[in-house]
Amino acid sequence: MIVNNLQLPYYAVIFTTVVSENLEDYEKTARKMATLATQQKGFLGMDSARNEIGITVSYWKTLDDITAWKNNAEHTLARNLGREKWYKNYQLRICKVEREYGFLK
Amino acid sequence: MIVNNLQLPYYAVIFTTVVSENLEDYEKTARKMATLATQQKGFLGMDSARNEIGITVSYWKTLDDITAWKNNAEHTLARNLGREKWYKNYQLRICKVEREYGFLK
Repeated sequence: MIVNNLQLPYYAVIFTTVVSENLEDYEKTARKMATLATQQKGFLGMDSARNEIGITVSYWKTLDDITAWKNNAEHTLARNLGREKWYKNYQLRICKVEREYGFLK
Repeated sequence: MIVNNLQLPYYAVIFTTVVSENLEDYEKTARKMATLATQQKGFLGMDSARNEIGITVSYWKTLDDITAWKNNAEHTLARNLGREKWYKNYQLRICKVEREYGFLK
């Protein structure tokens, strides 16, 4: 399933990644961070897909909620490991969702 | 590779999809639309990943460029086929990118 039915206004964090060869503890930490994110104030949902590259989009009520999650201690530790070990390249974009269209059969 | 080094301000279109069992002509059309998108005015880049779900994020200079691409005749035809045949569920979000952070090793 994908994230549907969010109410405007809200924010999207687009996290696009290229991983390195060293993926020790990566899956475990990624799962832990995904779970931890869902427990944060203002978290609205998350979609994630990976093949050659990874794209994770998380949705948040306010910019302050995104900043608080960024500053979460466990998340900061994971991010530092990500830079040291797992990621060759990533791009993180913070966006205001302005319009939304859904289709469900 | 992923899309890096875009200059603010710009827009992101997040297209999240769940496909159906009937994927006849899907890959061919998806590739054709990806190529056609790159030829549109205001197109800045595109990232795409798929496993259980698909996420494609395209980047555009202005909202008008996004509207023009939406109204492109071939794109409209493909979108109609998508609703008829390929997609069980999709969500399309048009977003203004407000901040961006990159990491490249």
